[in-house]
Amino acid sequence: MRAIRYQPDRLELLDQTRLPHETVWLTCTTAEDVYRAIQAMQVRGAPAIGAAAAFGLALEARRLPAEEVRSRLPEVAAWMKTARPTAVNLMQAVDEVMSALDEAPRGAEADALYRRAVAIAERDIATNRRIGEVGAEWVARHGGRILTHCNTGSLATVEYGTALGVLRAMHAAGTLKHVYVDETRPYLQGARLTAYELKEEGIPFDILTDSTAGFAMKLGWIDAVVVGADRIAKNGDTANKIGTYSLAVLASYHGIPFYVAAPRTTLDLSMSSGDEIPIEERSADEVTHWFGRPVAPEGATARHLAFDVTPGHLITGIITEAGVALPPYEESLTRLFGGG
Amino acid sequence: MRAIRYQPDRLELLDQTRLPHETVWLTCTTAEDVYRAIQAMQVRGAPAIGAAAAFGLALEARRLPAEEVRSRLPEVAAWMKTARPTAVNLMQAVDEVMSALDEAPRGAEADALYRRAVAIAERDIATNRRIGEVGAEWVARHGGRILTHCNTGSLATVEYGTALGVLRAMHAAGTLKHVYVDETRPYLQGARLTAYELKEEGIPFDILTDSTAGFAMKLGWIDAVVVGADRIAKNGDTANKIGTYSLAVLASYHGIPFYVAAPRTTLDLSMSSGDEIPIEERSADEVTHWFGRPVAPEGATARHLAFDVTPGHLITGIITEAGVALPPYEESLTRLFGGG
Repeated sequence: MRAIRYQPDRLELLDQTRLPHETVWLTCTTAEDVYRAIQAMQVRGAPAIGAAAAFGLALEARRLPAEEVRSRLPEVAAWMKTARPTAVNLMQAVDEVMSALDEAPRGAEADALYRRAVAIAERDIATNRRIGEVGAEWVARHGGRILTHCNTGSLATVEYGTALGVLRAMHAAGTLKHVYVDETRPYLQGARLTAYELKEEGIPFDILTDSTAGFAMKLGWIDAVVVGADRIAKNGDTANKIGTYSLAVLASYHGIPFYVAAPRTTLDLSMSSGDEIPIEERSADEVTHWFGRPVAPEGATARHLAFDVTPGHLITGIITEAGVALPPYEESLTRLFGGG
Repeated sequence: MRAIRYQPDRLELLDQTRLPHETVWLTCTTAEDVYRAIQAMQVRGAPAIGAAAAFGLALEARRLPAEEVRSRLPEVAAWMKTARPTAVNLMQAVDEVMSALDEAPRGAEADALYRRAVAIAERDIATNRRIGEVGAEWVARHGGRILTHCNTGSLATVEYGTALGVLRAMHAAGTLKHVYVDETRPYLQGARLTAYELKEEGIPFDILTDSTAGFAMKLGWIDAVVVGADRIAKNGDTANKIGTYSLAVLASYHGIPFYVAAPRTTLDLSMSSGDEIPIEERSADEVTHWFGRPVAPEGATARHLAFDVTPGHLITGIITEAGVALPPYEESLTRLFGGG
């Protein structure tokens, strides 16, 4: 399954706000189209956002008059990075696709950016497969009943997934028994998207409301927790979908291993700790309304933090394409990924 | 505000599945009407269920041929207790209203049951006001920013509320600064009902998705947690709305005081620990569908535990009408309430 289709003159995105009941493809032909799709969470998931942004800049390079690409594209790139603040993959992918400009022959900028964007997308798939292999072998030792949060699958990446890639690989290896899926309010990425992917794969699962996870751990239902990441600081502190922090505290309390699965592009070695990671606060309406219908009383106030930060000391291991990093993360992440 | 209105020949219930946007009163004239309203959660909250059940039996006594009341009502009472399994107030109130039969003159059974049901309802109001006074003074020492879960207010009781009664009393005393309200999936009692009551009172609040609570604690937003209860065992183990257990673990981790507020009728001294409390598992559809509309993919599976059990050792204190019980609860609860 893929939620991103690309051609030199268009990017097609499977609208993730409409799944699983409506299959609507958006066609983007400009950077602005892609920016708006990222903001509206029609494309979401740190790696998917990065790839989409790269294609957005390639589309813009094609659309601009050839003689203006080099002068005008950097501004568009800087703007694209502001679509969402937390996932660093967006910033990394924008920088990477823009570096193609330096090497491109005059007049061939658009082709160069498109090729670079394709490389980013293809690398994401290969990276996820490797994360899956590495993680499946590692996590299976704890048992086969895994709790996950949000959606980290094909829909959150270009294909296969990070944390959900680990579950796919465990399923392929016959070591996955059951997945517990946090529904993941307010967008219900777990109930809508992860459940959709698990059903397609024939993996047995149960959706839980987010606040059930702790009691499920107490009842002995969970052998390990595996989640994705939007940004990982040098010390292992990890920004991820709101609720991840609670799961990590609860897992620690119950002695249940807690893993983060993420590619190198989610690392931000420029940040020494998670305190520096910007946390997006989204509209309160996304909490107080559902399907455009108000749930809370008229005028009710809410806070909607889209992410939280889990301190590295609550994370058992970080599963990457280069291996599993273990605490202390400053050492292990630097060892796995060189100087950054 | 009241959600229960009673007369000898009818019980009117404000349908809590329709609030806050629709104000629909259900009229019950038989025990079966009340039973169905309890099962469907049109009336909910442990004390409110108890009072409603008592009125349901009084209605049935009026409906039955006078000569059959004593022979047939016990079976109806036993059945009424099965409407929902976890909140012990239901069982207590049924036993209490049925005890009026013993003292009633022949032919006056219906009047006797009605008077006893009214006494249960009026006592609930007085008890809640006392819980509010006791709790407000006690909790305010920790600060004025309180997190609560589910709905424990006028809508969950006959009037005023238990945990929300504590917040009302703090507000009246000028010690309440801000309330954080867990939305409380899957029924959203927090976002729909607690927010509605707080707005009516002019108490400042923010709704949070349930999985935000842990990070809100980490960010220093919360001075104390106050929740209600559906059944409290002799050792202080407390069954309450699913998610309460996670909050207690998270509060303990962050060194935040965690209180349960409940009347004596929520105590079940026949149970030595929470392991004996039956936990209701409701339909998975209530998780996978919203407003009758499917959210998860067709055929997706879910688990829907309606309650969890928080061990007494995670509870800072249990606020009752007779004072605040502190650990060890076996001693303090017995001391407050005699032999049970």
